[in-house]
Amino acid sequence: MCLLSSVLGSGGSNGTGPNILLLLMDDSITCLTYFYFLLFSLQMGWGDLGIFGEPSRETPNIDKMASEGILFTDFYTANPLCSPSRAALLTGRLPIRNGFYTTNSHARNAYTPQEIMGGIPDSEILLPELLKKSGYFSKIIGKWHLGHRPQYHPLRHGFDEWFGSPNCHFGPYDNKDRPNIPVYRDWDMIGRYFEEFTIDHKTGEANLTQIYLQEALNFINKQADSHQPFFLYWSIDATHAPVYASHPFLGTSRRGLYGDAVREIDFSIGQILELLKQKGIAKDTFVFFTSDNGAALISAPRQGGSNGPFLCGKQTTFEGGIRVPGIAWWPGHIAAGQVSYQLGNIMDLFTTSLSLAGQDIPRDRTIDGIDLTSVIIQGKEIERPIFYYRGNELMAVRLGPHKAHYWTWSNSWEELSQGINFCPGQNITGVTTHTQVEHSFNPLLFHLGRDPGEKYPISVLSTEYEDVITRISYVVQQHKNSMVPGEPQLNVCDLAVMNWSPNGCEKLGKCLNPPQSAPWKCIWPH
Amino acid sequence: MCLLSSVLGSGGSNGTGPNILLLLMDDSITCLTYFYFLLFSLQMGWGDLGIFGEPSRETPNIDKMASEGILFTDFYTANPLCSPSRAALLTGRLPIRNGFYTTNSHARNAYTPQEIMGGIPDSEILLPELLKKSGYFSKIIGKWHLGHRPQYHPLRHGFDEWFGSPNCHFGPYDNKDRPNIPVYRDWDMIGRYFEEFTIDHKTGEANLTQIYLQEALNFINKQADSHQPFFLYWSIDATHAPVYASHPFLGTSRRGLYGDAVREIDFSIGQILELLKQKGIAKDTFVFFTSDNGAALISAPRQGGSNGPFLCGKQTTFEGGIRVPGIAWWPGHIAAGQVSYQLGNIMDLFTTSLSLAGQDIPRDRTIDGIDLTSVIIQGKEIERPIFYYRGNELMAVRLGPHKAHYWTWSNSWEELSQGINFCPGQNITGVTTHTQVEHSFNPLLFHLGRDPGEKYPISVLSTEYEDVITRISYVVQQHKNSMVPGEPQLNVCDLAVMNWSPNGCEKLGKCLNPPQSAPWKCIWPH
Ligand SMILES: [Ca+2]
Ligand SMILES: [Ca+2]
Repeated sequence: MCLLSSVLGSGGSNGTGPNILLLLMDDSITCLTYFYFLLFSLQMGWGDLGIFGEPSRETPNIDKMASEGILFTDFYTANPLCSPSRAALLTGRLPIRNGFYTTNSHARNAYTPQEIMGGIPDSEILLPELLKKSGYFSKIIGKWHLGHRPQYHPLRHGFDEWFGSPNCHFGPYDNKDRPNIPVYRDWDMIGRYFEEFTIDHKTGEANLTQIYLQEALNFINKQADSHQPFFLYWSIDATHAPVYASHPFLGTSRRGLYGDAVREIDFSIGQILELLKQKGIAKDTFVFFTSDNGAALISAPRQGGSNGPFLCGKQTTFEGGIRVPGIAWWPGHIAAGQVSYQLGNIMDLFTTSLSLAGQDIPRDRTIDGIDLTSVIIQGKEIERPIFYYRGNELMAVRLGPHKAHYWTWSNSWEELSQGINFCPGQNITGVTTHTQVEHSFNPLLFHLGRDPGEKYPISVLSTEYEDVITRISYVVQQHKNSMVPGEPQLNVCDLAVMNWSPNGCEKLGKCLNPPQSAPWKCIWPH
Repeated sequence: MCLLSSVLGSGGSNGTGPNILLLLMDDSITCLTYFYFLLFSLQMGWGDLGIFGEPSRETPNIDKMASEGILFTDFYTANPLCSPSRAALLTGRLPIRNGFYTTNSHARNAYTPQEIMGGIPDSEILLPELLKKSGYFSKIIGKWHLGHRPQYHPLRHGFDEWFGSPNCHFGPYDNKDRPNIPVYRDWDMIGRYFEEFTIDHKTGEANLTQIYLQEALNFINKQADSHQPFFLYWSIDATHAPVYASHPFLGTSRRGLYGDAVREIDFSIGQILELLKQKGIAKDTFVFFTSDNGAALISAPRQGGSNGPFLCGKQTTFEGGIRVPGIAWWPGHIAAGQVSYQLGNIMDLFTTSLSLAGQDIPRDRTIDGIDLTSVIIQGKEIERPIFYYRGNELMAVRLGPHKAHYWTWSNSWEELSQGINFCPGQNITGVTTHTQVEHSFNPLLFHLGRDPGEKYPISVLSTEYEDVITRISYVVQQHKNSMVPGEPQLNVCDLAVMNWSPNGCEKLGKCLNPPQSAPWKCIWPH
């Protein structure tokens, strides 16, 4: 069996078809050359899941997924904001390397709004491009966020199918000053948010999650029947503000509308996992559940989630901005009910996926993600640091249980005075600073085991401080010495590049007139 | 079977013995007249359990207990401090009724340190006194905290056995100005903390939890073999500062010494539940796990726990001070894996226990606890308010998902300036106040489903506010109209009443000389 599938596996890497039938019977973990892959990525906070202590415990399906697989307690996103995180996930590289950052000002979060000119560079190699070599068929459902101009289209970067939007579902816009965000099926737009794809801000009703769910179920049915391995990147945006849920879920949560949206996502994940079981391919499907950044506390409580015991939220390099749920599920290969303390990162999914597909990682560039296969399958723990950037600055580093902050800031006093608060109700002197404070000489050090909330800096006079900072400084120096930043992609904005006339707009009669090109240096306020 | 045990049950309520053998075979929930009862109570925060989101997830046994029983998401203690909570648990009555409060100043927490003169009044009826009528044999293992003078001894208030101490394990004292706290076996002291029962403050080593565990295991073995129903009140103090753990657990937690203590408790609970199964009496033993107050954030991070997403900690009537873990376990009677949103209170354990033992609740006094039997067995939900006092003042009320604060305060500016902080890292303007602020005219209102952290008061101009406050005001008015406060027991202190010469000291040669009696009005700073 194992021999067979090894042979088949190498056949499969040519991308030819016949290998697939037999693989469905392979359940040996030692000859993994062929598998199905599926991934969720949501804007959801650590503290939003029942299993992570959300008091209302309204995520029974995700909790069950964790109890059937591995729960990662110390899993991180690559950036406290969506676009850079997603670029990092698909390239296995820090945003500072793949270009998803700005140099317009120091330590600022940048992403890909409609007016951005940049996007994922052609020079980057994305996960689906590599998986294609092993015969995978890849689909993205939901938000792309790696650039919306034609050259950044997901089907130009390895995906075979796309159903979703290039940007967040902000709006409604007037289609004069700003166009509404398009929704694509593959190469062509098929409508726009707030037009063909409605979201009712008054009631919070939208059936988008149901549409994205149905799309996933159809895809899984099709792939299971065709026996072609797949990579499905289910990247819905339902808990991003403005929050919505479909009619059957509205008003069902103890947590209000945000909870309704969470419940609908939980329901959808239950449906997806159930279908994998029904189709008999659960044992051939590696599923990972995670989030692109911590909960957006700025939108709480009605439009934002919870980061549980952690400090601050999205936009910050405190734990609330970057520690995210991490659950790996793969019946028959991953033993049920495990907890892993492995320091993990969303970039590891790139490397791990390649490893599971039997591929080498690219050798012509630095890959920041590590291969977690031995962690997931054999319960090993790998020592490694994790580096947290905000824009072009290394803000903090985690090594073992410790985290050192080289720079702190939440947002500016000016923004705070306007009511923009990334740390509502939280205030730790010298930590949640409202000016950019450099601590490079004496980094702020926390022990996240004793103090997951980053409330009690370890005294610089302690031997613990001295020992740990010595080790972390060495790791940081090595990292800095070898760092070659990529060309920053998020520096230039232009109203002319917005979603005026996406491919396919002619057929729908939905092309809009762009203004004259007038690029400017984008302003990133925090 | 059911008939048999009903007959036996009515026999059992005479307190005669022969009923017991047969009861072990009864597993019908409709004829519950006879059962074993067991209860834990610890100083542990909501956020300290894996199942409630503690990031290190080091409580596999308690998490498993929850997965085999009912997890209460909205369970409360009766007071944010130990002694009043424990008095409320055993009497089913608010501290304001049973006398465990002070009138020395307004809205102050009081308890039973060594110098207190008061204790549990004879006029109060305690749970073991009533269970005795149903033939129960009752034991308390651990901290009593309802008064240490002879008239307050647990064996004078219904318990048949005691192993533990009357006060917290503070010290070491010099036995001149203050005596060390005694440890009792039944009527007699058998040693003192820091003398016969050592706690090493330097290393944090003490084998007290092991001793208390062994005591519980011996008791269960004995009761199971004798077939006499029991009420075991396992009330260890291991996570109370100063924190300790035994040698095998020291240094094993990712959370430091506090985590070591939590791990040892978790281990102990695993051992206890396992023994109940081994002895074949798990189906006859109702087990409830809870805590006497929220985690003491003032001792964090090295000596205090976590309240997860909640506001502030012990000493306050914010959620962090009063919302506690609640787990009911009773294999064969309670279906596994349930979550209950029932508003529960530690005082309900009094009423529920009586109901399970087939007894009526006392009719000559107000009982604040409600009978949760239908919640636990049939999954019902009962609407009821919960009232939160601090000393002699009604601070807040919960009804449904809403909580209204009539008074707020954390502690005084003076204390805060000395570094005493009940809300470290948290600061919510107008909520975590450092003066006592009355809000009776417009109570601060929170929706704990959307906003479990009590960060976002609902606008007084909203219809939600108007609707909810109308209902809560009515409930509060009813409560106040019928309130007859008990004689306050925690007003007078005297150094002469400390643990100088506990019963049995002569045999050990450990009697100490008390100073002359000089009572004063105790000062309760917060
Ligand atoms: Ca996001
Ligand atoms: Ca306590």
